[in-house]
Parts: sequence; structure tokens; C-alpha cells
Amino acid sequence: MALPNPDPTAYGSGGALAGDVLGAYLRAQATAFLRALRLHGEAAGSAPAGGAAAGAAEAARGLRGAARRIAGSLATFRAATDTAWADGLRGELDWVSSVLAEEHASAALPARLLDALHRLSGSPERPGAAAGGSGAGPGRPTSGPTGLATGPGGLAAGPARAAALLERQLAPARARAHAAALQALGSSRFHAVADAVAVLASEVPPAPAAARGRAADVLLPLAEVPRARLAAAVAALPPAAQAPGYDAAQDGSLQEVRRLLRLHRYAREALGEDVARLAEAGGVLARHGDAAEAAAASAAAARTPRIAPATAYALGVLHADQRHEAEAARRAFHRIWHPAPAPV
Amino acid sequence: MALPNPDPTAYGSGGALAGDVLGAYLRAQATAFLRALRLHGEAAGSAPAGGAAAGAAEAARGLRGAARRIAGSLATFRAATDTAWADGLRGELDWVSSVLAEEHASAALPARLLDALHRLSGSPERPGAAAGGSGAGPGRPTSGPTGLATGPGGLAAGPARAAALLERQLAPARARAHAAALQALGSSRFHAVADAVAVLASEVPPAPAAARGRAADVLLPLAEVPRARLAAAVAALPPAAQAPGYDAAQDGSLQEVRRLLRLHRYAREALGEDVARLAEAGGVLARHGDAAEAAAASAAAARTPRIAPATAYALGVLHADQRHEAEAARRAFHRIWHPAPAPV
Repeated sequence: MALPNPDPTAYGSGGALAGDVLGAYLRAQATAFLRALRLHGEAAGSAPAGGAAAGAAEAARGLRGAARRIAGSLATFRAATDTAWADGLRGELDWVSSVLAEEHASAALPARLLDALHRLSGSPERPGAAAGGSGAGPGRPTSGPTGLATGPGGLAAGPARAAALLERQLAPARARAHAAALQALGSSRFHAVADAVAVLASEVPPAPAAARGRAADVLLPLAEVPRARLAAAVAALPPAAQAPGYDAAQDGSLQEVRRLLRLHRYAREALGEDVARLAEAGGVLARHGDAAEAAAASAAAARTPRIAPATAYALGVLHADQRHEAEAARRAFHRIWHPAPAPV
Repeated sequence: MALPNPDPTAYGSGGALAGDVLGAYLRAQATAFLRALRLHGEAAGSAPAGGAAAGAAEAARGLRGAARRIAGSLATFRAATDTAWADGLRGELDWVSSVLAEEHASAALPARLLDALHRLSGSPERPGAAAGGSGAGPGRPTSGPTGLATGPGGLAAGPARAAALLERQLAPARARAHAAALQALGSSRFHAVADAVAVLASEVPPAPAAARGRAADVLLPLAEVPRARLAAAVAALPPAAQAPGYDAAQDGSLQEVRRLLRLHRYAREALGEDVARLAEAGGVLARHGDAAEAAAASAAAARTPRIAPATAYALGVLHADQRHEAEAARRAFHRIWHPAPAPV
């Protein structure tokens, strides 16, 4: 798919100087970082209503994305930068984006689980008064859309109890990550990062002689490195058809592919390419990661001692549902990736 | 798809007499019935080894299929038969096939559930030593391929206990259905059916004047009735996209479609048409019914009082897994059915 062989003539930026192309991308991302930082400050300063929280989350997403893009470009195109400067800034931006990513993930996980429980137990729009179906046979109790809805035997409270259990287990991590993010963004260390990004937004970054070569000669070969690493990681995945059903063993490999895909995507973005399909593949891998983590959290919650059978049953349904979502995302990634022959 | 408008010229049998075409089909199915009956008797008479049981099941399947085909053809082409004779034989064959179907379903259900539990908890061929994946986060216990495999907290015994519970709950119905089938096949009522089928296999069945018309004139219009009923039932289904995820409310409608599809298929088969795609669609609907029934049985078992949380969790995973299989089959049916425009 989106891994064509490089063709210098295809890039409008190919004839420009490497330093100019990279500098323009870094400046644009630095500007995006500063804008997101301002929005984040405004959202944090306003009343803690739902809208403000959503605004803060959106601003944090913008900060995270810009930090990752700057750090990724500095990594990929390190040879076209002042390496001491680039390595220092990259390390700090990696710290910022990891703190923000942890805050995001720790809030998204319980939200995803509670949403799924709500869906599985039947929302008001989907009445739970479903017939058991002709296959259920006589005398079998009917179940709702999912077997999580009202039914005899005390299972009705299962989803609510599972939701309460998950909320109880995941809330501390979410609160910790939120506090850590607030503390990080208020720290002098972060202010130094923001200062460095502000300089990047307005000044030409320090650059070695290499940056004065043509972009096609300097940046394109460097951008081949993340492409090759990504291609190797994807090639090492088992084929989609080879792992029917569940396979949590692949979760780690797919998340490594996700990380490499992000680096590759940012490198192509810096070169001015269309990265829509890379973004689509990345979105599918994000969905895979979120679902796999939710499935693991559901299984972990089911190991809580002395929970009610109804709670455990609901967690089992939830676990399988999320594993299915993870597997569907894995298959979707293979469908996006494999229609065209792999790069040579 | 497989519901083209009738075109008399397309049928080799169109120019033949209706009675000859229908008679040939009935004779062929009667012969298949008698052969399956002989095989069933041989399998039942041999030592009760696994091979014999499989042979008996295969013979019962053959008996069931032939009984359904004869009964279905007698229903669809009733106007081209001696109706008193046809109605009498059809009623008896419906009785035979329902007894055999119940025996089959009551044995297939626990087998399906235990197979799924085995698959979900990781077979020896699929090592359960899976990493938790990068998304699982530090400190979270790792789960096997499905969260049903070994893990802390006593969940490891869940699949085994769920299997034992399901086996315990479903074994009586299976034993009852098996005994009922044996008793039915040994009854004088069944011997009378077998005698009638033996006559059908060797003699021209009684027929009214209508049977002396051309097949294209007599049988084709009759075969339009099940086609139209099937088309109406399919059209009444919600579109595949309209019911994402679970929807047990549709189970009944789909099983009615399955019944009508079977009648339509046998009618086209009697006319000498290729019914491969109808058979494929029927197989998908059979898979839907089996999975929906297994999901309902898993939910019902989870309502057993005083089961362990690990058992309930495994039943929840099993339930969601089977609901997903049912939904996948439902989508597959829509994919098979809807590529071509519906019949007018």
C-alpha cells in the first residue's frame, strides 16, 4: 500500500534545501504545539464543566501530536540537524508526549470499558425485550440482545456491578496520571521545553553542512530508514489468516508496528507527502491497542477475589467483546496493508 | 443472487412431463432414504466404537435430508400429486425428520460449546504462553490467548468447570433425544413410513391429471411459491448494516428464513437446477442457528445458582464468542444474498 519506492521527482520539496524543508515542518509543528499549549491553559483555567474537560483533552491531544512529530522528525532526520541540540530536545519532547499519552490512555480505558458494557447490556434505544430466538429451545430463559440484559437468576445486575468494579479499579491510575500530567505541565522542566519549542517556532534551527544539500539527496535517504524498519516489522507479523480468533501474543508486535508506522508517517509528512492511508492504518492499530488493553483489564478485573458470578459473567462477555474488536482491527490492518505488493 | 426469475427454456426438464420430473426426484430421494436407513441399521448393530457412532450420525443425517426433500417436494408440488397420499406421507416424514433433527441438535449443542471452550482456553497446538502485549501495562497479570488460560486468581479452572456444568445441564436432553430417536426408528409407525418410501422408490406415485402437463407449465409455477415466500422473508430482515453487534431479536427471523430457504432449495433441486449457492446460504444460516443456540445455552448456564466466578466468567466469554459467531454468520448471509438485486 503506502510504501512506494522513493522517487525523488515525485516530491515538490525534492529540489529545495534539506534544511529549509525540515525547518518549515519543524516550525509548523512548533506553532501547533504552542497553540495547543495556549488552548490547554485556557481550558484548565475555566470552570471545570464538561466542555472545558473536552477542550483540555483536545488540547492535550494537539500537544501530544506536535511533540511526537517534532521528536520523530528530529530522530529520523538527525543527520541533517545539530545532533546535540536535536537529541536534547527530542528527549524532552518524548517525556512530554509519554506523560500526556499515559494521561490519555488511563482516561480512555475506563471510558471504553463502560461504553462497551453499556452497549452490551442494551441501551434505551435498543430495547432489551428480545426474544430468545427459535434456536433457544423451549424452557430456556430468554436473554437480551447480549445475554447481559434482564433475565432470571440475578444476572441483571452484572453489567452495573462490573462497571462499578472497573471504575473502582481503574480510577486511581486515571487520577494519578492526570495529576502527573498537571504537575509535569506546571514544572520548570516543561517550561524549558516550551521555551525551546517557542524558539523553534520562530528561528531557523541550528544545522550542519548536510542541511544545505538538496532535500531529495539528504532527507529522502534518511526517511528510508523508518520505512525499512516498518516494512520489516510488518513482514514479521503472521499473516492475518494464520491467526484466526484470539491471539494476544500478537498484541505486542502490532503495537511495535504502530510505533514504527507513526515514525514513518511523520517522516513522509515532513517531506510533504499525503499520509492519509498511513493515518488510517495507524487509527486501526490504535483501535487494536485500545481494545486489547480493555480486554486485558476486563480479564484482570475478573480475577478480583469474591466477586459475584453475575459480575464475572459480564466481565467475560466484555473481555470476549473487546478481544473480538482487537482481532477485527488486526484484520482491518492487514486488509489496508496487503492489497498492494510489499516494498522491495 | 440465486433467485433469478424463472425462465422455462433454462430447464432441461421443462419439456418433460411434470409427473416424470417430480417422480424421478422423489424416487431418487426415496432411494437415498432407504440407503441411509440401511447404513443406520448397520452402524447401530456394530460395536459402539467412535467410528460406528460417526457412521450412525452420518446415516441419520442422510435419512433426515432425504425425508426433508421428499416432504418438501410433496408440499411445494402438492397440486401435481394425489393430495391425500402426499399429505399423509409428508406428515409422517416431517415427524421422522423432526425427531432426527432434535437428536442431532441436542448432541451438536454440547459438542459445539465444549469445542469452543477448548479453543478459547488455548489448545496444546496454540501455546498459552502469550505475552500480555504492550498495551496491558505494567503490573497487570498476563492472560492467555483469550483470558481463559492460566492466570492468577483461580480463573484457570473456569473453562473446565464451565465445560462440566454445560455437560451436566445438556446431557439429559441429549440422552432423551437419542432415546426418542431410537424408539421412533424402531416403532411400527416408522416401519410404515419406510414401507411407503420403499414403494415410492420403485413405483410411480399416484398422480392427478395435472401431472401429465409439461413440467414448465405445472411445476415451475408451483416452485414460485416458496421462492416468493423466501424473498418476502428476506426482504423483511433488517439490513446487515442496521444491526451492528448483537441482536438476538433477529434469531427467530433468520431461522424462519432458513426453513423457507430449505423449501426453495429442494424445489429447485427437484427441477434439476444447480443449488450450490442456496446450499451455501443455508449452511451459513445453520451456523447462525447453532451459534445463537450455543450463546443462549451459555447464558442460561450462567444463571445457575452458586456457580464460581471463574465459571461465570468463562461462560460470559463463551456467550460473547458464540454471539459473535452468530453475527458473523448473519453478515455472511447478507453478503451471499445481496450482491444481486432482489427478485421482483
